[in-house]
Amino acid sequence: MTDTHQATRREPHAYLRGELVVVIDCSDLDRSAEFWTGVLGYVRDGVATGRYQTLLPADGKGAEVLLQRVPDGKQAKNRVHLDLRTRQLEPEVERVVRLGAQVRTERPITEHGWRWHILADPDGNEFCVLQPPVSHWAG
Amino acid sequence: MTDTHQATRREPHAYLRGELVVVIDCSDLDRSAEFWTGVLGYVRDGVATGRYQTLLPADGKGAEVLLQRVPDGKQAKNRVHLDLRTRQLEPEVERVVRLGAQVRTERPITEHGWRWHILADPDGNEFCVLQPPVSHWAG
Repeated sequence: MTDTHQATRREPHAYLRGELVVVIDCSDLDRSAEFWTGVLGYVRDGVATGRYQTLLPADGKGAEVLLQRVPDGKQAKNRVHLDLRTRQLEPEVERVVRLGAQVRTERPITEHGWRWHILADPDGNEFCVLQPPVSHWAG
Repeated sequence: MTDTHQATRREPHAYLRGELVVVIDCSDLDRSAEFWTGVLGYVRDGVATGRYQTLLPADGKGAEVLLQRVPDGKQAKNRVHLDLRTRQLEPEVERVVRLGAQVRTERPITEHGWRWHILADPDGNEFCVLQPPVSHWAG
Protein backbone atom coordinates (compact mmCIF):
# COMPACT_ATOMS: atom_id res chain seq x y z
CA MET A 1 0.00 0.00 0.00
CA THR A 2 1.44 3.36 -0.93
CA ASP A 3 -1.57 5.09 0.52
CA THR A 4 -0.62 4.91 4.16
CA HIS A 5 -3.06 7.63 5.13
CA GLN A 6 -6.18 5.81 4.10
CA ALA A 7 -4.80 2.49 5.19
CA THR A 8 -3.41 3.09 8.61
CA ARG A 9 -4.46 6.31 10.25
CA ARG A 10 -7.07 8.21 8.35
CA GLU A 11 -9.37 10.15 10.67
CA PRO A 12 -11.77 12.13 8.49
CA HIS A 13 -13.52 15.21 9.81
CA ALA A 14 -16.90 14.14 11.12
CA TYR A 15 -20.24 15.81 10.72
CA LEU A 16 -23.57 14.65 12.10
CA ARG A 17 -24.15 11.98 9.45
CA GLY A 18 -20.73 11.25 8.00
CA GLU A 19 -17.66 13.07 6.75
CA LEU A 20 -17.12 16.76 6.06
CA VAL A 21 -14.88 17.70 3.13
CA VAL A 22 -13.82 21.08 1.75
CA VAL A 23 -13.86 21.25 -2.05
CA ILE A 24 -11.80 23.90 -3.86
CA ASP A 25 -12.24 24.58 -7.56
CA CYS A 26 -9.12 25.10 -9.65
CA SER A 27 -7.88 25.10 -13.21
CA ASP A 28 -4.67 23.09 -12.68
CA LEU A 29 -4.75 20.23 -10.16
CA ASP A 30 -0.99 19.96 -9.87
CA ARG A 31 -0.42 23.65 -9.30
CA SER A 32 -3.18 23.87 -6.71
CA ALA A 33 -2.02 20.69 -4.98
CA GLU A 34 1.47 22.14 -4.71
CA PHE A 35 0.07 25.36 -3.30
CA TRP A 36 -2.44 24.02 -0.80
CA THR A 37 -0.30 21.16 0.52
CA GLY A 38 2.40 23.75 1.23
CA VAL A 39 0.04 26.26 2.80
CA LEU A 40 -1.86 23.81 4.98
CA GLY A 41 0.77 21.19 5.71
CA TYR A 42 -1.25 18.60 3.83
CA VAL A 43 -0.09 15.79 1.55
CA ARG A 44 -1.47 14.43 -1.69
CA ASP A 45 -3.46 11.25 -1.26
CA GLY A 46 -2.09 9.46 -4.28
CA VAL A 47 -2.21 10.94 -7.74
CA ALA A 48 -5.04 12.87 -9.34
CA THR A 49 -8.00 10.81 -10.51
CA GLY A 50 -9.72 12.42 -13.46
CA ARG A 51 -10.58 15.91 -12.37
CA TYR A 52 -9.99 15.33 -8.66
CA GLN A 53 -7.00 15.45 -6.34
CA THR A 54 -7.43 14.53 -2.70
CA LEU A 55 -5.31 16.35 -0.11
CA LEU A 56 -5.09 15.05 3.45
CA PRO A 57 -3.56 16.41 6.64
CA ALA A 58 -0.02 15.05 6.95
CA ASP A 59 -1.01 13.16 10.11
CA GLY A 60 -4.26 11.95 8.52
CA LYS A 61 -6.40 13.69 11.12
CA GLY A 62 -8.89 16.23 9.92
CA ALA A 63 -10.78 17.56 6.97
CA GLU A 64 -9.93 16.33 3.51
CA VAL A 65 -9.45 19.08 0.95
CA LEU A 66 -10.65 17.92 -2.44
CA LEU A 67 -9.32 19.86 -5.41
CA GLN A 68 -11.70 19.83 -8.35
CA ARG A 69 -10.63 20.93 -11.81
CA VAL A 70 -13.34 23.01 -13.43
CA PRO A 71 -13.54 24.57 -16.88
CA ASP A 72 -15.06 27.86 -15.80
CA GLY A 73 -12.95 30.69 -14.46
CA LYS A 74 -13.60 32.62 -11.32
CA GLN A 75 -16.16 35.40 -11.69
CA ALA A 76 -17.08 36.74 -8.27
CA LYS A 77 -15.84 36.87 -4.73
CA ASN A 78 -15.90 33.46 -3.03
CA ARG A 79 -18.75 33.17 -0.57
CA VAL A 80 -17.18 30.26 1.24
CA HIS A 81 -13.51 30.60 2.09
CA LEU A 82 -10.81 29.38 4.46
CA ASP A 83 -9.45 31.41 7.34
CA LEU A 84 -5.97 30.54 8.56
CA ARG A 85 -5.45 31.77 12.10
CA THR A 86 -1.84 32.06 13.14
CA ARG A 87 0.27 33.61 15.88
CA GLN A 88 2.46 35.86 13.72
CA LEU A 89 0.74 37.47 10.78
CA GLU A 90 3.60 38.86 8.73
CA PRO A 91 5.88 35.80 8.56
CA GLU A 92 2.91 33.61 7.69
CA VAL A 93 1.79 35.95 4.93
CA GLU A 94 5.36 35.97 3.57
CA ARG A 95 5.43 32.18 3.68
CA VAL A 96 2.21 31.68 1.73
CA VAL A 97 3.21 34.37 -0.77
CA ARG A 98 6.39 32.43 -1.44
CA LEU A 99 4.13 29.44 -2.15
CA GLY A 100 2.25 31.43 -4.79
CA ALA A 101 -0.45 33.38 -2.96
CA GLN A 102 -1.30 36.93 -3.94
CA VAL A 103 -1.96 39.52 -1.25
CA ARG A 104 -5.12 41.50 -1.88
CA THR A 105 -4.81 43.94 1.04
CA GLU A 106 -2.14 46.66 1.11
CA ARG A 107 -2.07 46.67 4.88
CA PRO A 108 -3.68 44.47 7.49
CA ILE A 109 -7.34 44.91 8.29
CA THR A 110 -7.81 45.32 12.04
CA GLU A 111 -10.91 44.70 14.11
CA HIS A 112 -11.36 43.96 17.82
CA GLY A 113 -7.73 43.02 18.27
CA TRP A 114 -7.67 40.81 15.18
CA ARG A 115 -5.33 41.64 12.27
CA TRP A 116 -5.58 39.96 8.89
CA HIS A 117 -4.76 40.03 5.24
CA ILE A 118 -6.91 38.83 2.38
CA LEU A 119 -4.99 36.68 -0.07
CA ALA A 120 -5.80 34.60 -3.10
CA ASP A 121 -4.68 31.17 -4.25
CA PRO A 122 -3.31 30.64 -7.79
CA ASP A 123 -6.88 30.61 -9.16
CA GLY A 124 -7.92 33.75 -7.34
CA ASN A 125 -9.86 31.96 -4.59
CA GLU A 126 -9.76 34.26 -1.60
CA PHE A 127 -8.59 33.14 1.81
CA CYS A 128 -7.49 35.04 4.88
CA VAL A 129 -4.47 34.82 7.15
CA LEU A 130 -5.37 36.21 10.55
CA GLN A 131 -3.57 36.96 13.77
CA PRO A 132 -6.11 36.74 16.59
CA PRO A 133 -5.63 38.66 19.81
CA VAL A 134 -3.41 36.85 22.31
CA SER A 135 -6.48 36.00 24.39
CA HIS A 136 -7.70 33.76 21.57
CA TRP A 137 -4.97 31.22 22.22
CA ALA A 138 -5.53 31.12 25.95
CA GLY A 139 -8.96 29.42 25.67
CA MET B 1 -18.71 30.57 31.74
CA THR B 2 -21.56 29.81 29.41
CA ASP B 3 -19.13 29.03 26.65
CA THR B 4 -18.21 25.53 27.67
CA HIS B 5 -16.80 24.66 24.28
CA GLN B 6 -14.02 27.21 24.33
CA ALA B 7 -13.47 26.73 28.03
CA THR B 8 -13.28 23.03 28.52
CA ARG B 9 -12.81 20.99 25.41
CA ARG B 10 -12.24 23.05 22.32
CA GLU B 11 -10.01 21.27 19.83
CA PRO B 12 -9.75 23.48 16.75
CA HIS B 13 -8.83 22.06 13.38
CA ALA B 14 -5.10 22.42 12.93
CA TYR B 15 -3.15 23.51 9.90
CA LEU B 16 0.61 23.82 9.56
CA ARG B 17 0.84 27.15 11.39
CA GLY B 18 -2.34 27.42 13.44
CA GLU B 19 -6.06 26.88 13.08
CA LEU B 20 -8.16 26.22 9.99
CA VAL B 21 -11.66 27.74 9.85
CA VAL B 22 -14.37 27.59 7.19
CA VAL B 23 -16.12 30.93 6.61
CA ILE B 24 -19.57 31.02 5.01
CA ASP B 25 -21.15 34.26 3.82
CA CYS B 26 -24.80 34.82 4.56
CA SER B 27 -27.44 37.51 4.75
CA ASP B 28 -29.08 36.46 8.04
CA LEU B 29 -26.85 35.08 10.79
CA ASP B 30 -29.67 33.55 12.76
CA ARG B 31 -31.23 31.77 9.81
CA SER B 32 -27.88 30.41 8.64
CA ALA B 33 -26.89 29.39 12.17
CA GLU B 34 -30.14 27.45 12.49
CA PHE B 35 -29.53 25.78 9.15
CA TRP B 36 -25.86 24.88 9.47
CA THR B 37 -25.99 23.74 13.09
CA GLY B 38 -28.79 21.39 12.10
CA VAL B 39 -27.07 20.12 8.98
CA LEU B 40 -23.65 19.60 10.52
CA GLY B 41 -24.51 18.76 14.12
CA TYR B 42 -22.76 21.92 15.29
CA VAL B 43 -23.73 24.33 18.07
CA ARG B 44 -23.59 28.09 18.30
CA ASP B 45 -20.61 29.35 20.26
CA GLY B 46 -22.47 32.05 22.16
CA VAL B 47 -24.48 34.72 20.41
CA ALA B 48 -23.60 36.60 17.26
CA THR B 49 -20.96 39.32 17.62
CA GLY B 50 -21.47 42.10 15.10
CA ARG B 51 -21.53 40.42 11.74
CA TYR B 52 -20.12 37.09 12.92
CA GLN B 53 -21.55 33.93 14.42
CA THR B 54 -19.21 31.13 15.41
CA LEU B 55 -20.43 27.53 15.03
CA LEU B 56 -18.53 24.67 16.64
CA PRO B 57 -18.83 20.90 16.49
CA ALA B 58 -21.07 19.74 19.33
CA ASP B 59 -18.16 17.85 20.89
CA GLY B 60 -15.78 20.79 20.33
CA LYS B 61 -13.51 18.76 18.08
CA GLY B 62 -12.93 19.99 14.59
CA ALA B 63 -13.20 22.90 12.23
CA GLU B 64 -15.02 26.00 13.35
CA VAL B 65 -17.56 27.30 10.86
CA LEU B 66 -17.71 31.08 10.98
CA LEU B 67 -20.85 32.66 9.55
CA GLN B 68 -20.22 36.12 8.18
CA ARG B 69 -23.05 38.48 7.34
CA VAL B 70 -22.33 40.30 4.09
CA PRO B 71 -24.30 42.97 2.27
CA ASP B 72 -23.78 41.59 -1.23
CA GLY B 73 -25.93 38.82 -2.63
CA LYS B 74 -24.67 35.72 -4.31
CA GLN B 75 -23.76 36.17 -7.97
CA ALA B 76 -21.94 33.09 -9.20
CA LYS B 77 -21.38 29.47 -8.40
CA ASN B 78 -19.34 28.97 -5.22
CA ARG B 79 -15.78 27.92 -6.00
CA VAL B 80 -15.19 26.59 -2.52
CA HIS B 81 -17.93 24.40 -1.05
CA LEU B 82 -18.60 21.69 1.47
CA ASP B 83 -19.15 18.05 0.61
CA LEU B 84 -21.12 15.97 3.07
CA ARG B 85 -20.40 12.28 2.61
CA THR B 86 -22.97 9.97 4.09
CA ARG B 87 -24.00 6.33 3.97
CA GLN B 88 -27.58 6.80 2.74
CA LEU B 89 -28.10 9.55 0.22
CA GLU B 90 -31.87 9.92 0.07
CA PRO B 91 -32.69 10.13 3.79
CA GLU B 92 -29.86 12.61 4.30
CA VAL B 93 -31.05 14.79 1.43
CA GLU B 94 -34.56 14.70 2.87
CA ARG B 95 -33.21 15.67 6.27
CA VAL B 96 -31.28 18.72 5.04
CA VAL B 97 -34.21 19.77 2.86
CA ARG B 98 -36.41 19.78 5.95
CA LEU B 99 -33.80 22.10 7.49
CA GLY B 100 -34.18 24.54 4.61
CA ALA B 101 -31.86 23.33 1.85
CA GLN B 102 -32.90 23.47 -1.78
CA VAL B 103 -32.09 20.57 -4.09
CA ARG B 104 -30.52 21.70 -7.35
CA THR B 105 -30.35 18.30 -9.05
CA GLU B 106 -33.46 16.48 -10.23
CA ARG B 107 -31.84 13.12 -9.81
CA PRO B 108 -28.52 12.02 -8.32
CA ILE B 109 -25.34 12.53 -10.28
CA THR B 110 -23.41 9.26 -10.47
CA GLU B 111 -19.72 8.71 -11.11
CA HIS B 112 -17.42 5.80 -10.27
CA GLY B 113 -19.83 4.37 -7.74
CA TRP B 114 -20.48 7.73 -6.07
CA ARG B 115 -23.99 9.20 -6.06
CA TRP B 116 -24.70 12.76 -5.05
CA HIS B 117 -27.04 15.69 -5.12
CA ILE B 118 -26.15 19.37 -5.34
CA LEU B 119 -28.05 21.46 -2.82
CA ALA B 120 -28.00 25.05 -1.66
CA ASP B 121 -28.19 26.66 1.76
CA PRO B 122 -30.71 29.45 2.48
CA ASP B 123 -28.41 31.96 0.73
CA GLY B 124 -27.88 29.81 -2.32
CA ASN B 125 -24.42 28.60 -1.33
CA GLU B 126 -23.98 25.26 -3.01
CA PHE B 127 -22.98 22.14 -1.12
CA CYS B 128 -23.19 18.47 -1.99
CA VAL B 129 -24.53 15.43 -0.17
CA LEU B 130 -22.76 12.34 -1.46
CA GLN B 131 -23.03 8.62 -0.97
CA PRO B 132 -19.61 7.09 -1.64
CA PRO B 133 -19.26 3.50 -2.78
CA VAL B 134 -19.27 1.01 0.10
CA SER B 135 -15.52 0.52 -0.31
CA HIS B 136 -14.99 4.12 0.81
CA TRP B 137 -16.00 3.30 4.37
CA ALA B 138 -13.83 0.22 4.60
CA GLY B 139 -10.53 2.17 4.55
